[in-house]
Amino acid sequence: MALRGAVVRLLSNSHKCAAVTASRPQSTAAASAPKGTPKVAFNWRDALNLEGQLTEEEVMIRDSFRDYCQEKLMPRILMANRHEHFHPEIISEMGELGVLGPTIKGYGCAGTSYVAYGLIAREVERVDSGYRSVMSVQSSLVMHPINAYGTEAQKEKYLPRLARGEILGCFGLTEPNHGSDPSSMETKAKYNPSSSTFSLSGAKTWITSSPVADIAVVWAKCEDGKVRGFILERGMKGLSTPKIEGKFSLRASATGMILMDEVEVPQENLLPNVSGLAGPFGCLNNARYGIAWGALGAAEFCFHAARQYTLDRFQFGVPLARNQLMQKKMADMLTEITIGLQSCLALGRLIDQKKAAPEMISMLKRNSCGKALDIARQARDMLGGNGISDEYHIIRHVMNLEAVNTYEGTHDIHALILGRAVTGLQSFTVGK
Amino acid sequence: MALRGAVVRLLSNSHKCAAVTASRPQSTAAASAPKGTPKVAFNWRDALNLEGQLTEEEVMIRDSFRDYCQEKLMPRILMANRHEHFHPEIISEMGELGVLGPTIKGYGCAGTSYVAYGLIAREVERVDSGYRSVMSVQSSLVMHPINAYGTEAQKEKYLPRLARGEILGCFGLTEPNHGSDPSSMETKAKYNPSSSTFSLSGAKTWITSSPVADIAVVWAKCEDGKVRGFILERGMKGLSTPKIEGKFSLRASATGMILMDEVEVPQENLLPNVSGLAGPFGCLNNARYGIAWGALGAAEFCFHAARQYTLDRFQFGVPLARNQLMQKKMADMLTEITIGLQSCLALGRLIDQKKAAPEMISMLKRNSCGKALDIARQARDMLGGNGISDEYHIIRHVMNLEAVNTYEGTHDIHALILGRAVTGLQSFTVGK
Amino acid sequence: MALRGAVVRLLSNSHKCAAVTASRPQSTAAASAPKGTPKVAFNWRDALNLEGQLTEEEVMIRDSFRDYCQEKLMPRILMANRHEHFHPEIISEMGELGVLGPTIKGYGCAGTSYVAYGLIAREVERVDSGYRSVMSVQSSLVMHPINAYGTEAQKEKYLPRLARGEILGCFGLTEPNHGSDPSSMETKAKYNPSSSTFSLSGAKTWITSSPVADIAVVWAKCEDGKVRGFILERGMKGLSTPKIEGKFSLRASATGMILMDEVEVPQENLLPNVSGLAGPFGCLNNARYGIAWGALGAAEFCFHAARQYTLDRFQFGVPLARNQLMQKKMADMLTEITIGLQSCLALGRLIDQKKAAPEMISMLKRNSCGKALDIARQARDMLGGNGISDEYHIIRHVMNLEAVNTYEGTHDIHALILGRAVTGLQSFTVGK
Amino acid sequence: MALRGAVVRLLSNSHKCAAVTASRPQSTAAASAPKGTPKVAFNWRDALNLEGQLTEEEVMIRDSFRDYCQEKLMPRILMANRHEHFHPEIISEMGELGVLGPTIKGYGCAGTSYVAYGLIAREVERVDSGYRSVMSVQSSLVMHPINAYGTEAQKEKYLPRLARGEILGCFGLTEPNHGSDPSSMETKAKYNPSSSTFSLSGAKTWITSSPVADIAVVWAKCEDGKVRGFILERGMKGLSTPKIEGKFSLRASATGMILMDEVEVPQENLLPNVSGLAGPFGCLNNARYGIAWGALGAAEFCFHAARQYTLDRFQFGVPLARNQLMQKKMADMLTEITIGLQSCLALGRLIDQKKAAPEMISMLKRNSCGKALDIARQARDMLGGNGISDEYHIIRHVMNLEAVNTYEGTHDIHALILGRAVTGLQSFTVGK
Repeated sequence: MALRGAVVRLLSNSHKCAAVTASRPQSTAAASAPKGTPKVAFNWRDALNLEGQLTEEEVMIRDSFRDYCQEKLMPRILMANRHEHFHPEIISEMGELGVLGPTIKGYGCAGTSYVAYGLIAREVERVDSGYRSVMSVQSSLVMHPINAYGTEAQKEKYLPRLARGEILGCFGLTEPNHGSDPSSMETKAKYNPSSSTFSLSGAKTWITSSPVADIAVVWAKCEDGKVRGFILERGMKGLSTPKIEGKFSLRASATGMILMDEVEVPQENLLPNVSGLAGPFGCLNNARYGIAWGALGAAEFCFHAARQYTLDRFQFGVPLARNQLMQKKMADMLTEITIGLQSCLALGRLIDQKKAAPEMISMLKRNSCGKALDIARQARDMLGGNGISDEYHIIRHVMNLEAVNTYEGTHDIHALILGRAVTGLQSFTVGK
Repeated sequence: MALRGAVVRLLSNSHKCAAVTASRPQSTAAASAPKGTPKVAFNWRDALNLEGQLTEEEVMIRDSFRDYCQEKLMPRILMANRHEHFHPEIISEMGELGVLGPTIKGYGCAGTSYVAYGLIAREVERVDSGYRSVMSVQSSLVMHPINAYGTEAQKEKYLPRLARGEILGCFGLTEPNHGSDPSSMETKAKYNPSSSTFSLSGAKTWITSSPVADIAVVWAKCEDGKVRGFILERGMKGLSTPKIEGKFSLRASATGMILMDEVEVPQENLLPNVSGLAGPFGCLNNARYGIAWGALGAAEFCFHAARQYTLDRFQFGVPLARNQLMQKKMADMLTEITIGLQSCLALGRLIDQKKAAPEMISMLKRNSCGKALDIARQARDMLGGNGISDEYHIIRHVMNLEAVNTYEGTHDIHALILGRAVTGLQSFTVGK
Repeated sequence: MALRGAVVRLLSNSHKCAAVTASRPQSTAAASAPKGTPKVAFNWRDALNLEGQLTEEEVMIRDSFRDYCQEKLMPRILMANRHEHFHPEIISEMGELGVLGPTIKGYGCAGTSYVAYGLIAREVERVDSGYRSVMSVQSSLVMHPINAYGTEAQKEKYLPRLARGEILGCFGLTEPNHGSDPSSMETKAKYNPSSSTFSLSGAKTWITSSPVADIAVVWAKCEDGKVRGFILERGMKGLSTPKIEGKFSLRASATGMILMDEVEVPQENLLPNVSGLAGPFGCLNNARYGIAWGALGAAEFCFHAARQYTLDRFQFGVPLARNQLMQKKMADMLTEITIGLQSCLALGRLIDQKKAAPEMISMLKRNSCGKALDIARQARDMLGGNGISDEYHIIRHVMNLEAVNTYEGTHDIHALILGRAVTGLQSFTVGK
Repeated sequence: MALRGAVVRLLSNSHKCAAVTASRPQSTAAASAPKGTPKVAFNWRDALNLEGQLTEEEVMIRDSFRDYCQEKLMPRILMANRHEHFHPEIISEMGELGVLGPTIKGYGCAGTSYVAYGLIAREVERVDSGYRSVMSVQSSLVMHPINAYGTEAQKEKYLPRLARGEILGCFGLTEPNHGSDPSSMETKAKYNPSSSTFSLSGAKTWITSSPVADIAVVWAKCEDGKVRGFILERGMKGLSTPKIEGKFSLRASATGMILMDEVEVPQENLLPNVSGLAGPFGCLNNARYGIAWGALGAAEFCFHAARQYTLDRFQFGVPLARNQLMQKKMADMLTEITIGLQSCLALGRLIDQKKAAPEMISMLKRNSCGKALDIARQARDMLGGNGISDEYHIIRHVMNLEAVNTYEGTHDIHALILGRAVTGLQSFTVGK
């Protein structure tokens, strides 16, 4: 056999096995790229090649929106957050880009895939969770219920203007005494047959955008004990929306209450096609899906920023990034972001195929938020003293993610939702 | 408008808004299945519908192998582990099933996808990591290098018999003083032109299957300083393979040393098509990929077993599973297993497409092993006192996963591999 | 001013401020030992100078017992654990040393402080938790209840022989179906007036030493629903004590069941001075206190062994101990061991002053066990592959501490005990 | 024997063993308070009776200062933090109370124990870490070095005014490019013999109180390469102290830079009695000791506030505090605060006895800060949405503790200091 003869000859000459493969460049090349694991460059910004799993359209939507976020939002966020200021023009800018209520078909909406919606949420939250919150509320908590539970007239009246960002919406579910337990809702809706109106009374709190919103989708308990949704408009008598001061999270979005003192709501503002908690829960599921993607966008920002900081900053004569303790933190960040995003993608595809269950969303909302918060905290730590300055942005994400990990189902509440799904036993109510 | 009229009439009658939707059963149904999140039953055994992402062939291979594992391996493992006994017939049983070297094309191998290989690893490690180790070694560390770096003659001589499980192989890389740093290898191979043989001397340790293996792929440093691979056969003079006693991990597999005192190895047993550490590293990548899947199989067993235990066992009058502290542990397990498997699937697809980088494998080997170990520990804790009894199997997985988290790159070493990939700076060697 | 003149002259000469202090050696010395933090050598084996807080007697007892443990127990433990063998002669050796029931006054017991008892537990568990378990059972769960709740006759009959280690005792509380909830006890004691005996029936499980013990303190529910304690002796009719096989924790101690099929127990074997769960709970508190110290002894062994291993083993040309990732693990170990021991000392002093509450013991039992288990796992990880070999001892501690963290109140149960103490609300029973 | 007879009689009558102890109330009482663990009420606010280990004087100092903190500081902190405003009058109020430089003997200082100093730090940080920072700087970083390294004239000139809070001091060590590595200091001091002055040039950053301080102890590198300390006064030419804006931590204290452009410092402002890094390191040790206590004070506030919140707030019909997930968090908080404080007390006693090593302080600074940060984060989480509002104070502590965990040695740097102490090998500098 030729090969064997060559080997023998070469070895006889050199007395070293180095020569064995010296004359076989092809197979040496093959050897350096063994089967199964060919030489592929590793991209730490996309460690499992998420990019390759997206459609062209999804990439295009994402890229153009990313440009907007980096060029238009990023320069505004520092002062907006420092001074607790919400820039209302952002919503109309987003409207122009077609990213509001993007998955809705018709009514001036883009009709994208749920994966595209997730990518949008990720890009905006890469800048700030407050901006993503405003967008989530508009898309998932205002436009979604009008589209899913509203009349044709309601859709035609509200959706196009909401989609264009001409009007801003908010969502009133949480009450002062009932954060994790909406079934104990105290806000009442009483029907008045003479005027064909409902009279709403009660208080909602921690409502994103309420102080500046034009309309509000508010959930109230009717006389039959069932929860129903209503569209309220700014200017209705008895309605006020005071801002909550002293908020150290999501400062670039406005948060407030919705106070209703016998607000008269015309019957045509009732969302007729849902009753019970399925209504708000459907909205929350929709929003949580966006949060699952968005929180990882914030985490990615923190990872990338901390990486660059530790590469640029020298201590003891080497870049901070050369330290094992730093590298371990980054390895953890890389991993959690990558596997989190991969799972969000799988979930988005399932939603697009109508194969998703709410518990899947609970699982990934919880996972993304908890992990993103950890990552942001670690990243802040990597910046040392500079990490508490808002100019490095990470401390802002740390503060934001505290709220994101809490709202629309806290980390613990989602654990119990999942625990129930796994065991068939609920453990929310104890000792009753 | 008809609808509105109906609503008015109904409300006039009932004075309750319940009636609003009473006559609209279709849309009530629609409401309980809001768009985007239709009613899909949640399957806690497959929380992101991995099943739906597999090919029919993959499912078929997996199912038939799962049956074997549950019916043939599971009944043997308790005593095998308790008494540190390896059942050598397992390898020929696996050979019959076609799961050895499954991704290799030809030579009696099945030629499956890498995803199928992963599914196989997951099923066998659901029973025991020791059995998976034996299988990984045979497939990834013995058959793979012969296939990737061997001559045609070597392939024809060894692969079919290895595939059928007629002979068992082992892999000699790690040395007593160099666990994480193979570049400091001390085993030497010296060429003797007169006999056309290499003389190998040195010691390898922590070698899975060495005490019972028929052949060994051993890596040695040649006179030119380059590392090369050799196929050794039991019975060669100067070769001994003592068993390591007192092992409290992977007890159902045999582990030992490979001691070589001037073992004469014919030149045709050199693997000619690779030199340097790329050879063994290529093998390890291959094996690590299987471990990434396998470790999650062990984690799944622990999750499922702990779930069932806490459902069956009552304390203070309710099933243990009714406790929030238990449910939280299960929520965490569910999440990590699900997102870990989803990522392994994505990686398998990338390998099949030749788009995988070694760092991806490092990332998931590390993630799966670390998380699986955590899950096993939590599961053991959930079993209370019973958790230390081997009859419940979980303590065995806890012990096994200690080794699995350590071998083929420790958790920390893979962190530094990833850290280097992220930063471009290596931090393995300090202070030199 | 002389100083100032000197400074000026010196500076004029040298143009360097180094000279400023050159003529002031005294104050330079003072400067290197600034007030408040004088130059004291740091002792990593005793980082907050626990030694200096012990009495001479306590140090003496500890030192002589440490010698015994290291010289007599350490050489036996490897094979004892590997082969699940309990050496019964250990108990008489301990008896000779006076460490059984050491805090009891009279009856041949040493009458030491509770701090001394803690130090003894720490030394023996530094070798093995199984040995400490046997000792804890003898001292806290057998001798303590006889002393605290027994008659004078019982004390005179049993305590001196137990103290000398002539007889070995065990403690029967836990039942197969009631690990964390002894109030649901099923073992019954029925009084028979004609024979002045109690008839005991029921089963106890996970009983340390039961297969080899001479006597057992067993808790049973009397006809009035109250729990009471009885002293059973080997050989009583209807009493059997089968060994539990396949235990992968505490293998150097024997564990079994206590099966009672109408065992006739003379009335004089009733412990008359306690009724209800206060009896066994008092014993458990006593034992838990010893565990709080003991578990940290095991942790210290693991810390010291891992430290030495990483100093001795070179990878990439430097000792493993030179790596930041290793040093961080050791810093964590050092800290938790130190603050844990300091707190055990404070608790021991409070017990000696009769100022301790049971919740204090719960807190430190839980803290020591949880932290010790973490430390042992980290230490095992630091040993890499060698960490699974029993010759390095750490894997044994890992396995042992799984049981120690679970028995006499699991980590979670003690969390709920503490939660109740903090909030005044019990959360053990859910959903009833 | 009388007892036995009584037992027999009673049992004959009642046929129930309940009667056994019925006539023995004394011993029943004894039984319910078994030896070794008498009935002592558990105080969750002081779980190991720290109070009983303090001197009367220490308790008195603590109590009067606590009153001040709660009555005078607590009402100011909300707005001070919200608007980033430092109230300079606080320093003179503290001066009146005698808590500035409290351990210094003479010069108008109180001369307390180091334990008393720790108690003071704990009380003020229970309100706000920013206030404690100002106090620590004044006491440990300004008064301490003047006392330890200064001339008699310097002490007489500065200490009484600093003690009374007439003047406020700051400490300039950290430079923009050298956070964790002061040995690379760039600030230079050049001696000018003609004027008997030093000319200082350089920049210090993250300097607590610099924008409002009257004097600054600044460390600079002299021409001989040695670091020395200088007392600078506001108004010196070339000295400016710009405030750092956008700080989201310690907002109630002013933080800024110290910019020195050839500032002429009279020679009598040199601290003559120290040279090299021993000077600033001695100060830092002193300050770190106070931080170790202080951080736990902040943690205690968060624990107590979260406890009360969860008792007051009902969800699903029960107080949040009734949930196992909440109780577990509180059990962890209770434990870490208790064992942390106990260890701080032991350290304080060692300092008072001149038996403390700097590594002990590193250990407890690191432990207290890391644990306090974890506790604050958990507490914030327990408050759900309300947790991001500054009115509940916890989010403020979360933000503050980020800085506290970082300054005066980050968590990681102290790990490496401890790692070096344990192994004898330094791992700060890698790859050089």
